[in-house]
Amino acid sequence: MDISGSASPLLILSLNLLGTFVFGLSGGLAAVRANLDLFGVVVLATVVAMTGGIVRDVLIGTPPATFRDWRYLVAAAAAGLVCFFGGHLLERAESSVTIFDALGLGLVAVTGASKALQFGLGPIQAIILGAVTGIGGGMLRDVLLREVPAVLREGLYAVPALLGAAVVVVAHRVGSTSAVFTVLGALVCIVVRLIGWKYQVNAPTPRRR
Amino acid sequence: MDISGSASPLLILSLNLLGTFVFGLSGGLAAVRANLDLFGVVVLATVVAMTGGIVRDVLIGTPPATFRDWRYLVAAAAAGLVCFFGGHLLERAESSVTIFDALGLGLVAVTGASKALQFGLGPIQAIILGAVTGIGGGMLRDVLLREVPAVLREGLYAVPALLGAAVVVVAHRVGSTSAVFTVLGALVCIVVRLIGWKYQVNAPTPRRR
Amino acid sequence: MDISGSASPLLILSLNLLGTFVFGLSGGLAAVRANLDLFGVVVLATVVAMTGGIVRDVLIGTPPATFRDWRYLVAAAAAGLVCFFGGHLLERAESSVTIFDALGLGLVAVTGASKALQFGLGPIQAIILGAVTGIGGGMLRDVLLREVPAVLREGLYAVPALLGAAVVVVAHRVGSTSAVFTVLGALVCIVVRLIGWKYQVNAPTPRRR
Repeated sequence: MDISGSASPLLILSLNLLGTFVFGLSGGLAAVRANLDLFGVVVLATVVAMTGGIVRDVLIGTPPATFRDWRYLVAAAAAGLVCFFGGHLLERAESSVTIFDALGLGLVAVTGASKALQFGLGPIQAIILGAVTGIGGGMLRDVLLREVPAVLREGLYAVPALLGAAVVVVAHRVGSTSAVFTVLGALVCIVVRLIGWKYQVNAPTPRRR
Repeated sequence: MDISGSASPLLILSLNLLGTFVFGLSGGLAAVRANLDLFGVVVLATVVAMTGGIVRDVLIGTPPATFRDWRYLVAAAAAGLVCFFGGHLLERAESSVTIFDALGLGLVAVTGASKALQFGLGPIQAIILGAVTGIGGGMLRDVLLREVPAVLREGLYAVPALLGAAVVVVAHRVGSTSAVFTVLGALVCIVVRLIGWKYQVNAPTPRRR
Repeated sequence: MDISGSASPLLILSLNLLGTFVFGLSGGLAAVRANLDLFGVVVLATVVAMTGGIVRDVLIGTPPATFRDWRYLVAAAAAGLVCFFGGHLLERAESSVTIFDALGLGLVAVTGASKALQFGLGPIQAIILGAVTGIGGGMLRDVLLREVPAVLREGLYAVPALLGAAVVVVAHRVGSTSAVFTVLGALVCIVVRLIGWKYQVNAPTPRRR
């Protein structure tokens, strides 16, 4: 991977597949924690892994590529199987869901923003679309398990996704499509998200009556 | 605004932006009541404000316009910020959610029906699509906050949305695209919804074993 | 219906309409059990009946046909009215929801897979898309009524849908589009689902710490 060059289709594909896989892990581990059976674990892993990309493509207005490419399906299902057979080995499963979710958030926020730019959406839309791509899967995971989605509960969730996507979009606006910024955007998102979670950084809550 | 003339694109745009804003208020106030933080309030306001229009465009089969136009994003986010900073000033917050939701319901039910007609859908589809546009955002708001959606719980919710959309569709069928009917449809929906809510008008419940 | 010939558009339409109707029954009966009123029953029946087909078409990337064809709307709303006026006659309402859900699952899993093949998707995608078409409506029904979806809770739910769709796809791959396989696929799904439910067949649950 020549990360000094421009963000290649191969890099975007790799990040997308990796993002699909780690989101699948977050869904699968949440299913293990909820004591679902084998099929429940695989189904939830797949649903969580695929949702962000599908929402992204629906919002762009293009047929969901994630769904047409068997490699995403394999990555998602593989994550479910890993969680089913290996979930008990992962200590502190509660943290694991959050950590894999953070990795997925960063990976697909940058690829979501890149795809939006590629389809000619404006910079603001591309940043928001990147964030939506990252947020969608975890939101559905929490709804299906009857929890209020983390993006609504936790201070630093939407913000790191927006930041990561913004790195890619700003770089694109100043003329660079270097892969460095793709990787940097993902890292910014992941690091900010994990710091926010680790130190319980919360945004202010509204003044109440 | 020349409301004696035909429903202009400007009128539709204005109603859509206003509908987006008031739906955003309903989402943002629900978030304030649920004690979410700044980002949770803005995210929920935005999600609620955008959902109806996105579902409408997906059902029509056209790329979601709401998402591509930055003015909708600004209207939605502004509603979130208003709720965060000003939510405590709105007394009787519980009523506020319902009132703003009713305003949004009426505004986007008529614009949703108009857009469906414009894309050549049949009259029945246009009426239902108008109602769906109005119902979608509030339904997602309630699901994300783990409540059974108001459209399922309350007697007069789907019906006023269908009525408001029907005014526009019937007028269109008899050859009038006058803005009067667009405004009338919105008013019919809002008034019926608020009367139903105020006087707790309920539809019959099914006979049980 | 000449079930010895190739799967005709008429057969697919019939199965789709029947699937829409029985899914509507499962949604409407769930609404009756949740004590919703007339409009809540009809709205939930319609939403559940239409969702699978809409998700299928969105994933394929074609405007939702289910929504543009008034016959589906009539089938869905009729199911809601049947549940409202006749729900009390159906004894053991809890089983009824599951039984109608199983019928719908089988019917639309095969039509979903057929439509995917017709639009040129690969065999794996067609199988999954068939299953998604079957699962979508029931999943939304459970989420709206604040239950963890049956597809996540129960052992044999996704598997029969995948099996039923696979019958159609495998037959198609070996060159047969005979209606026999369409009907067989639906039956396989329904029978496996009902056996799994009746005898509480559960897949293994993951080993826990």
